[in-house]
Amino acid sequence: METDVLIHNALVLTLEPGASPLLNGYVAVKGARIAAVGQAASPRDLPPARARLDAGGGLVLPGLVNTHTHLPMVWFRGLADDLPLRQWLTDFIFPAEAGWLDPDKVYAGTLLAAAELIRGGVTTVADGYFYETEVRRALALSGLRAVVAQGVVDLPAPGVPDPRDNLKVAAAFLDSGGDFSLQGIASAVFCHSPYTCGPETLQKAKELTRARQVPFFIHLAETRQEVEEIRQKTGLAPATYLDRLGVLDELTVAVHAVWLTSEEQELLAQRGVKVSHCPESNLKLAAGVAPIPELLARGVTVGLGTDGAASNNNLDLFGEMSLTARLHKVWHHDPTLLNAAQVVALATRQGAQVLALEKKIGTLSAGKEADLIVVELNQPHLTPLYDPYSHLVYAAGAADVRHVMVAGRWLLKDRQLTTLDWPKIAERLAAGSRDLAAFCQKLRRP
Amino acid sequence: METDVLIHNALVLTLEPGASPLLNGYVAVKGARIAAVGQAASPRDLPPARARLDAGGGLVLPGLVNTHTHLPMVWFRGLADDLPLRQWLTDFIFPAEAGWLDPDKVYAGTLLAAAELIRGGVTTVADGYFYETEVRRALALSGLRAVVAQGVVDLPAPGVPDPRDNLKVAAAFLDSGGDFSLQGIASAVFCHSPYTCGPETLQKAKELTRARQVPFFIHLAETRQEVEEIRQKTGLAPATYLDRLGVLDELTVAVHAVWLTSEEQELLAQRGVKVSHCPESNLKLAAGVAPIPELLARGVTVGLGTDGAASNNNLDLFGEMSLTARLHKVWHHDPTLLNAAQVVALATRQGAQVLALEKKIGTLSAGKEADLIVVELNQPHLTPLYDPYSHLVYAAGAADVRHVMVAGRWLLKDRQLTTLDWPKIAERLAAGSRDLAAFCQKLRRP
Repeated sequence: METDVLIHNALVLTLEPGASPLLNGYVAVKGARIAAVGQAASPRDLPPARARLDAGGGLVLPGLVNTHTHLPMVWFRGLADDLPLRQWLTDFIFPAEAGWLDPDKVYAGTLLAAAELIRGGVTTVADGYFYETEVRRALALSGLRAVVAQGVVDLPAPGVPDPRDNLKVAAAFLDSGGDFSLQGIASAVFCHSPYTCGPETLQKAKELTRARQVPFFIHLAETRQEVEEIRQKTGLAPATYLDRLGVLDELTVAVHAVWLTSEEQELLAQRGVKVSHCPESNLKLAAGVAPIPELLARGVTVGLGTDGAASNNNLDLFGEMSLTARLHKVWHHDPTLLNAAQVVALATRQGAQVLALEKKIGTLSAGKEADLIVVELNQPHLTPLYDPYSHLVYAAGAADVRHVMVAGRWLLKDRQLTTLDWPKIAERLAAGSRDLAAFCQKLRRP
Repeated sequence: METDVLIHNALVLTLEPGASPLLNGYVAVKGARIAAVGQAASPRDLPPARARLDAGGGLVLPGLVNTHTHLPMVWFRGLADDLPLRQWLTDFIFPAEAGWLDPDKVYAGTLLAAAELIRGGVTTVADGYFYETEVRRALALSGLRAVVAQGVVDLPAPGVPDPRDNLKVAAAFLDSGGDFSLQGIASAVFCHSPYTCGPETLQKAKELTRARQVPFFIHLAETRQEVEEIRQKTGLAPATYLDRLGVLDELTVAVHAVWLTSEEQELLAQRGVKVSHCPESNLKLAAGVAPIPELLARGVTVGLGTDGAASNNNLDLFGEMSLTARLHKVWHHDPTLLNAAQVVALATRQGAQVLALEKKIGTLSAGKEADLIVVELNQPHLTPLYDPYSHLVYAAGAADVRHVMVAGRWLLKDRQLTTLDWPKIAERLAAGSRDLAAFCQKLRRP
């Protein structure tokens, strides 16, 4: 059987549980899927293919999965840092979202974000924001796989000035997703949080997603302050409160999950709730450190996320891997926690499980979708090589990604974007950011 | 006055206290020094120069200063991770240093490390290890500015099998440094720690450096365990103990400085002791979190260091900047601590002060040595641009460094190394690392 593309001369990490790295490895791709993964001691042993890509001795692994971000917020990258969370939101983010953002800017920002994601080896992204029809259109152009979730909040929001419309907008968004799902883009719902959405909204939003068997995302227990607010309002811890409302199940993704009691951790495990861990954002906003080793020990599936570029300020999962591996060690005074191979699994296989995509992606094996990246090893900071997982987590960076494939299609080839026009995006962003800076100047001088 | 090199079309961060970013900025270099820093609204306003470099709208700032590392330990990068500190040292590092390392390998490893440093925008590095005559030779070839410190420890060490010779070796090292100092490489002493060096060794080593007015480096209070050991042995906290011995002064660099009482913090401030902060290593080894905001508040000068690649596992100061800015925020529940501009100052101006090089480097101003880097901004993850300090700390990576100059000489031009032969280094490291892996295999099967 001739395949379409053969990626060879690679050190292949399949991320299948228990699998060893494959020296002289190859991945054969037919159409959108992986036809075979194997080893060839000599070039003669390679299967036939219409096109070949010599990985140059680099690492081939499943594409990274970013389980939580707000892509259009790249517009706000570096606009205001090092501020208290409330001040940052009320003085900058909320006014800019209300008075400046529009569908066209959401579309343009998403294209920029997609360019950054692809260059950093992300092949699947879960977004949660507003004007998500625009996000979906932009991601479709980029070729990325995605779960795009329309934001729901019981406050005026971009594109949804009257909160009473929020579920109607979300339902219409879900119902218009058919064509996109054929392109690997699922449509979902993102309830902002249990303190910005009332109980009825949470239940109805969950119903929308349950009826369609798609993920339901929600910020959960990010700060101590919000936990206190929910306790005062409901008498319950936030996860317990959500459970009483019936919104915790295997298709619920709890984002952040920082301030959880051990009872809540156990509750998430019992309900099969997934967790998206965003450590760079949690540190930058001084939110706290999520109990990831504890959640993993209870069997909770955890993926990594970057959060939005307004609170990170990048969409780089290599940074999240490095921080995840280091942070929990010092937090628990235990250098053996979360070893490198475990952390790579969070960013790939487990990330796929978080998004209910584990049947399609997350590991390299015959029959799965061909979502993979090639990391260039022949560089000073990745030399010498004893353990490829260690390098991915503790030494590599986004810029080491040389090629990126999604569903058998190259999105990055020799570090060049194939689907997106970077100069055009840059020009659009430069003009828009001058405009936003002027808008913010006016805010400062009322 | 015609200058030799003019770097123009740049956003210049001089790092002079209180200075604003210079739009349409330039830096003029004559010989090894900066002749002028300025702004030119039009190309006609640029000063004449024999050669020009168009920075392409990129950021120009002082080269980064890595205030602590063990360069030859790049050989051990990724050899053994995620282990308890003692097991890592006794099972891997100590046997490999004793039975495998030799001067030639120290030289080759330092060349590799230098390649990584240059590519990541480091222009000055402080090394502390053994066989430092080899480190000095390799760094001289690389063109990097450096403070190279011979290790002193009251135990058998690489190149110093009999500890009674350690001060003699250090003195000879200092006395042979003359030619290197002309090349920007100072020679110094690194006492491993107060728990591996006896009181007499510490005092005599400090005397050696005091007589020559060069820095004295020492690991201080890295782990709780060593603090306990020193307390049991001396009845004193480690910094207090060193002060009783008379080794704390303005030319002493305390590395790590994690477990300090507030009395010790005040003592370091009073004595003018400098601190090297190595957060990536401290987290990976679960050592702890250094009281950096507290030290800065007391007026202690703090620089950033990567530590060695065996405990990090990279020599990338962008990663240290990102972690420094984030870590102390979450540790103190305060998102306003250590803002981006402050952190860039730690990695440049304050790093220069830590190494007693503030008269020569650390800021861009006429008369200083021309040590600078150009960071490429025209990339998705650095778009849009509101605040260049924010991008350096929260979004940029080592790979964004496009050009590097030390003392008026390009060490990296368009991401290509000019002084080092990477294919040759890579070949040497590949062969050596196979040898080291085999050596470690034998250790595992005694």
